[in-house]
Amino acid sequence: MSVKDSLETLKKIGSELIRISQISALLGWDQETYMPREGIDDRASQQALLSGWQHERLTDPKIGKALEDLGVDIEVKRLELSQFISIPGLSEEDRAFVREMTRNYRREKKLPKSLVEEFAKETSISQSKWVEARERSDFEIFAPHLERVLKIEMEMAELIGYESEPYDALLDAYEPWMTTKELVNVFDRFETALKNLVDRIVDSSKEINDSFLYKRYNVRKQEAFGRELLEAMGFDFDKGRLDVSAHPFTTTIGFSDVRLTTRYSENNLKDAIFGIIHEGGHGLYELGFSENLRGNILAEGASMGIHESQSRLWENIIGRSYGFWSAFYPKLTEYFEDALRRVTLEDFYRAVNIVRPSLIRVMADEVTYNLHILVRFKIERALLNREISVNELPRVWNNEYEYLLGVRPSNDAEGVLQDIHWSLGYIGYFPTYSLGNLYSAQFYMKMREDIEDLDEEIERGNLRPVLGWLRENIHRYGKIYPAGELCKHVTGEPLNPQYFMDYLEKKYSEIYSLN
Amino acid sequence: MSVKDSLETLKKIGSELIRISQISALLGWDQETYMPREGIDDRASQQALLSGWQHERLTDPKIGKALEDLGVDIEVKRLELSQFISIPGLSEEDRAFVREMTRNYRREKKLPKSLVEEFAKETSISQSKWVEARERSDFEIFAPHLERVLKIEMEMAELIGYESEPYDALLDAYEPWMTTKELVNVFDRFETALKNLVDRIVDSSKEINDSFLYKRYNVRKQEAFGRELLEAMGFDFDKGRLDVSAHPFTTTIGFSDVRLTTRYSENNLKDAIFGIIHEGGHGLYELGFSENLRGNILAEGASMGIHESQSRLWENIIGRSYGFWSAFYPKLTEYFEDALRRVTLEDFYRAVNIVRPSLIRVMADEVTYNLHILVRFKIERALLNREISVNELPRVWNNEYEYLLGVRPSNDAEGVLQDIHWSLGYIGYFPTYSLGNLYSAQFYMKMREDIEDLDEEIERGNLRPVLGWLRENIHRYGKIYPAGELCKHVTGEPLNPQYFMDYLEKKYSEIYSLN
Repeated sequence: MSVKDSLETLKKIGSELIRISQISALLGWDQETYMPREGIDDRASQQALLSGWQHERLTDPKIGKALEDLGVDIEVKRLELSQFISIPGLSEEDRAFVREMTRNYRREKKLPKSLVEEFAKETSISQSKWVEARERSDFEIFAPHLERVLKIEMEMAELIGYESEPYDALLDAYEPWMTTKELVNVFDRFETALKNLVDRIVDSSKEINDSFLYKRYNVRKQEAFGRELLEAMGFDFDKGRLDVSAHPFTTTIGFSDVRLTTRYSENNLKDAIFGIIHEGGHGLYELGFSENLRGNILAEGASMGIHESQSRLWENIIGRSYGFWSAFYPKLTEYFEDALRRVTLEDFYRAVNIVRPSLIRVMADEVTYNLHILVRFKIERALLNREISVNELPRVWNNEYEYLLGVRPSNDAEGVLQDIHWSLGYIGYFPTYSLGNLYSAQFYMKMREDIEDLDEEIERGNLRPVLGWLRENIHRYGKIYPAGELCKHVTGEPLNPQYFMDYLEKKYSEIYSLN
Repeated sequence: MSVKDSLETLKKIGSELIRISQISALLGWDQETYMPREGIDDRASQQALLSGWQHERLTDPKIGKALEDLGVDIEVKRLELSQFISIPGLSEEDRAFVREMTRNYRREKKLPKSLVEEFAKETSISQSKWVEARERSDFEIFAPHLERVLKIEMEMAELIGYESEPYDALLDAYEPWMTTKELVNVFDRFETALKNLVDRIVDSSKEINDSFLYKRYNVRKQEAFGRELLEAMGFDFDKGRLDVSAHPFTTTIGFSDVRLTTRYSENNLKDAIFGIIHEGGHGLYELGFSENLRGNILAEGASMGIHESQSRLWENIIGRSYGFWSAFYPKLTEYFEDALRRVTLEDFYRAVNIVRPSLIRVMADEVTYNLHILVRFKIERALLNREISVNELPRVWNNEYEYLLGVRPSNDAEGVLQDIHWSLGYIGYFPTYSLGNLYSAQFYMKMREDIEDLDEEIERGNLRPVLGWLRENIHRYGKIYPAGELCKHVTGEPLNPQYFMDYLEKKYSEIYSLN
């Protein structure tokens, strides 16, 4: 086949794949929002049908033939970006397209159907065992199932292939093209500094009162305010929705149909508001791909880390800034006149930025959050490298928490059993949360350089320049650049954790009067 | 292949087909309820992908092979029920399953893909031209497009095959196994009687006041009352939902996931309430199939006529009965104390049963409704038999209305352009609405025979016996029996319009004091 024909073959299959994933996303969204309770059995078998169909398309021999004709060698230990630079006669976008088709095809082909089915079965069991184990706070109930899941993942890592260590193969599912070595290098560069900052904050005598955040806040008003924020951020409700689900998420049902969810708690003003800003950040990314990527598999985030950089840039860097609340706190007090009567803007700003080393990741502030991730990353890597065994997890976990955060879980539920991820087999996922924080600070530094009056605009409540910059520099590219390339492209240098540390240092020195 | 293997092959494909149609139903439901405005383009291409997939499965050569091995001859002019009685070694249910797989396969195989695509294209255009034509009340804008759609439909009828006349082939899509001849025979038997009844009502001096139905009725209260009615009918909200859409419909997204929609108008108390009862009737049918039909293509209504019998039995025979409102009118007045203060149960009952020959089908009462259908059926059949041409439609339509209903449209919008059906190519659909009315009365007569204290139970607001009887006698069978067989099975005789006429005669003699 000619280059043109090969590309056309791949494009056709790619366009089917993206539609299958959109359809599946709708089924998933519906399941979490509006599906009647008893719809669940049929929904599972509808999703299974789509998975089978997706697998069939992903492994279509036509893909292999087209790639072969394009001269792509898929029989390598690990795909390298350099393999795709040399394809002649393709635009940069089409090269990226071929690259991602190759990556998907190769992963899917390497894993035998029986193993994928076993994985689906074992993770389904282990998830329910995890629920039980957490309820009873007894890791031993979960351990044998985690063992099985881990065994399959290790087998998968071997089948997919890697250069240095098996973790590479798993990480690649969430953070394509990044190696464990790079990740370790990045994390090593801020672990000590971060730990120091936390220690200084803990040792400071500053007392912040955030008790008013837990008064009663009418849920409908929270929602109305959340919608105002989303509109200010530039979220277009003709291209998306905001609904309620047990766990907040963002999902893409069409190129111009991106839906956010959140949950409201009457006794917590923070959860929904910052949850909405966070999901809004994800949603704006998904709605910001260049129009010519419509129907293309490149209409996707560059990586989970980059995706998380968008949600966290909005949630933390913008959404927890003094300037942002200078603009929006007056509106918030209009909604909640009574509860916030004696709370100043200063009080509010400090309250939503309180730092407190704690046991539970999802409740963590932006400073200690990354220490929670470091614990998990170290453990995952050690497990994959057979340096520790599943049985040792509770002890290792508790020791790491004591070492990094200075707090020690008193039971498994508030320790090693707190997250669902491992039960689902999501090993390699956690680091992307931290990568998101790091990327967000590096991007924001560049944004401030590029937009002279950024701070003033935000203080005026005008967030359009923020979205404009993100669209222009990040969103429109979708998955054309791998995360690392994108970072260089946008900021002129590779991922550098110093930007994040500088950001934290500056912000929290002020809040906690550190010297 | 053995009978067992052939059956298994068909079952596997059947289970995929039903899931594809459920997935497509979810996409359709979402489009009409919650989809953001700009999601429409991707939704269309997602549906197109599903259609292609459905076509591929429907025409899988494995089906042909399995049917051949089962000894089913598909190369006949018209499939006959008798062909399936002789398959050895199959249960009644499996014979029905093979019958329906054959029917679907044969229809799909007979129509070349290019023709199906042309049909999709032409109906899409003609639908938008119909909208324009109706807005301008100008049939000539629509005529050339209807001409094209009709031409394709006639070609399809030839390809599908028929015994007596082309209308058979089209009718079969909506009312499987029924012939035009049977239909004519049924309709002929009540046309004159119905026309007479309408004349007597019009000539009666009885004046019914229904103006209070058009006061202001809070929409939220209408919804709350509608939900109460659905619960009383036995609709299980763990297996379904009620939402809002521009045009009410019922759709099946899973064996235990059936969703209704309605629309509310503040100035019309009737629309939403009777709409909800109507869709509730459809929904209860879809939720009533025997559990062992889960995942089987037989988990479907026997025909459109039978489906409509369920919605109309609930909406009209139960929902517009005096007994029903004896139970529920007190509740309704609690919701709308002011608006209904001086309206007695008697007043209300008569108002919701007012008979008035009018121009618009969807606004028609249950007496004149069938005359609207007769007009359409006669015209459709004459078109197919080339007895009239598209250009003559406005004149023929207006003459028929004048003859049957005694009213003459003054323009095309309130005449021949009022319904969307023909623009979509739904020729053969209208008669099923009347069949629904006829079946409903025949079923109800049998129900009253079987349940001694039925009237008393309904007056007490206990509708469970109604649902119980429908489930036991109709719902659970799904598509196992063709409509005609089902009717005989349930009532001991074929469809007999006399029951409907008796029902109308009795009810309206009383309301209009006829002699």
